[in-house]
Amino acid sequence: MGIVVQKYGGSSVADATSIKRVAQRIVATKKAGHDVVVVVSAMGDTTDNLIDLANEVSPLPPGRELDMLLTAGERISMAVLAMAIGNLGMEARSFTGSQAGVITDSEHGRAKIIDVTPGRIQAALQEGAIAIVAGFQGVSQTTKDITTLGRGGSDTTAVALAAALDADVCEIYTDVDGIFTADPRIVPNARQIPRISYEEMLEMAANGAKILHLRCVEYARRNDMPIHVRSSFSDKIGTWVVKAEDVIPTGSTNEEGTMEQAIISGVAHDRSESKITVVGVPDKVGFAAAILQALADAQINIDMVVQNVSAAATALTDISFTLPRADGQTAMTALARLKDEVGYERLQYDDSVGKVSIVGAGMRSSPGITARFFQALADAGVNIEMISTSEIRISVIVMENQIDAAVHAAHAAFDLGTDEVEAVVYGGTGR
Amino acid sequence: MGIVVQKYGGSSVADATSIKRVAQRIVATKKAGHDVVVVVSAMGDTTDNLIDLANEVSPLPPGRELDMLLTAGERISMAVLAMAIGNLGMEARSFTGSQAGVITDSEHGRAKIIDVTPGRIQAALQEGAIAIVAGFQGVSQTTKDITTLGRGGSDTTAVALAAALDADVCEIYTDVDGIFTADPRIVPNARQIPRISYEEMLEMAANGAKILHLRCVEYARRNDMPIHVRSSFSDKIGTWVVKAEDVIPTGSTNEEGTMEQAIISGVAHDRSESKITVVGVPDKVGFAAAILQALADAQINIDMVVQNVSAAATALTDISFTLPRADGQTAMTALARLKDEVGYERLQYDDSVGKVSIVGAGMRSSPGITARFFQALADAGVNIEMISTSEIRISVIVMENQIDAAVHAAHAAFDLGTDEVEAVVYGGTGR
Repeated sequence: MGIVVQKYGGSSVADATSIKRVAQRIVATKKAGHDVVVVVSAMGDTTDNLIDLANEVSPLPPGRELDMLLTAGERISMAVLAMAIGNLGMEARSFTGSQAGVITDSEHGRAKIIDVTPGRIQAALQEGAIAIVAGFQGVSQTTKDITTLGRGGSDTTAVALAAALDADVCEIYTDVDGIFTADPRIVPNARQIPRISYEEMLEMAANGAKILHLRCVEYARRNDMPIHVRSSFSDKIGTWVVKAEDVIPTGSTNEEGTMEQAIISGVAHDRSESKITVVGVPDKVGFAAAILQALADAQINIDMVVQNVSAAATALTDISFTLPRADGQTAMTALARLKDEVGYERLQYDDSVGKVSIVGAGMRSSPGITARFFQALADAGVNIEMISTSEIRISVIVMENQIDAAVHAAHAAFDLGTDEVEAVVYGGTGR
Repeated sequence: MGIVVQKYGGSSVADATSIKRVAQRIVATKKAGHDVVVVVSAMGDTTDNLIDLANEVSPLPPGRELDMLLTAGERISMAVLAMAIGNLGMEARSFTGSQAGVITDSEHGRAKIIDVTPGRIQAALQEGAIAIVAGFQGVSQTTKDITTLGRGGSDTTAVALAAALDADVCEIYTDVDGIFTADPRIVPNARQIPRISYEEMLEMAANGAKILHLRCVEYARRNDMPIHVRSSFSDKIGTWVVKAEDVIPTGSTNEEGTMEQAIISGVAHDRSESKITVVGVPDKVGFAAAILQALADAQINIDMVVQNVSAAATALTDISFTLPRADGQTAMTALARLKDEVGYERLQYDDSVGKVSIVGAGMRSSPGITARFFQALADAGVNIEMISTSEIRISVIVMENQIDAAVHAAHAAFDLGTDEVEAVVYGGTGR
């Protein structure tokens, strides 16, 4: 049998007891005949505690040193996990990102993986050992300094290693059973999705589903590495994220052999959105571009943009766009500087909005999806503020206090639920 | 000006406040025009906490993984120290033992430094940065695994780096003002020694003085690297450990230009000794050798050995030797196995003994030192149990509850004290 890469997040290795439990799962996988490579995050609150310590000595710690500091977290968890496995009679060897061959660029705090050269991991496997690798970290190709990968870094490490090792699967262990058709905290009868395509998962992740980070899914898609998202607290099969042609229909099919349920795979929502409206922009060529350029210069990724038709009498228009709330202050400051140049009337900032999206590869070939979605929202009394679409996704901006109603309505409109209510809590992943 | 290597122990970097204070001292040294390399231990209790964590998952953690775990401690302290220096406007870069070029053998937990290749440290200095290096750790030349150096490891790292960098001095910062003529907790008027030779310091360290580890002094002696032992809590000049010809007399001299005070440099004591007596050994060739070989096979270093003259009537003799208390149980077990082979009567174990030593290069050329020492002990009512000597040291084993009296008597007999009482506490170093 081939190589299995398993990734355990911080909540799965929060303390000695959790680590011992994870060690048993790893040993069981090894005993089943697989070569096992484990990617591990820092234990529970370690990273937060280290950041607190850094802030005690420096308000703005240098990126190089912050990375050096934070990587101590995985160093601890990986060594302790290797010891726990050793105590079960199997040999495990821990490796830092650098030792595992995770080569990155030099962007401290958000480094990108540019190569993986896992020679030492392969040697350990050949000698019958289980390899434990620190997630979230690598070494800069140019400076040889230690780097961290930023958000989603440990998942991405796991997928990148799996790809470099030509593993059979990359298992991402988390505290939920898999990917659901909607957040079960909002929709109690949400159904676990057995298989989903990389493209759909990318849209889900980009639009608020927190189980997998966009970046790790994109890495898996590019390398065609199957991801199995599952719970570290049970032995249940979770959700497989695979290429589109491997998404096997599991529901009932109609006469043509296509699945009605597969038109929409899931409903994602995002509470981290905010909206800025630039009111009273002169409706002339170049002003909208100037506004968007100012935001780009401030490193702000905007999501949706809407420009209202101008009222003929005034020749003024409004430009609205959405962006992460975390960037709201920066964006408002950047725009305020443009006031004289552009000559707009005023800025409006609204952080009581949210985004609800339906995602499904089937909508490419199924007309009427938008109509059904919008009708469901209307029936639920949800007002649509902005709309954006991709080939396999329709997103709407709604008032924050209508997000739950919108998710419910969409989920019901496309018959995504089961009859039973799954007893799970839908949580976020660490890093 | 040249390179200064500074080593700060765990108590000097116990928390954020201490680290900020150390950062200021380092920056001051840099501003005085030196290139500065800092070797740092783990913060306060970090190492103990990590060992506790290891023991929660494994009663006997593999050495490789324990080293990986423990090196997280210095990783944290060095990064935070670098940040604190950065916050004072100077650039500092932290380096692991591996990055600093500390190459060791593969003996996990007690690795020996076999080479130092500090290319990255030199590059950092050339670019004007302060280099912060993790003490206590290196990388195995053969396996490329992370190693730790064991007791005295951080001091040894500092001296080894200083030697490899051809530094002007290796400053060892601790929580006392330097090396004293005796433990000031026992002898309140003990005097700080301004300069002491490597050889004398080796004898002091080997016989219980805890400020510098034997190993670090030996490394300095071999490489003729001056060590300056001083307090991280004051700016006082501490004790210089240098080659014998650089020990400048600072006291009054007699007509011949030699120093009477320099005959004896200091009094060391050691409370970690124990004594085993093998009673009733047949007085034949080879039995003593068999006993000592059994102890050597059990990896026990014995210190003094005494064989009593046998009583003619019985042709039996007693063999006594001293050894660290920590090895007492192992030694007794090893000897018990020999009972039938050697045919001794019984074993006696005594852990209420201690060793008191006087050390001084001057005793080579001064007759009567032993007599003066033993007379002083006799006058103080201290019974001598065993004796051993080197060219520059005389040690006696006494009852543990007479150690203080013996130290007092020796210190007074050789006029080592000052008139004032130094306000210091004589503590041990970490690692």
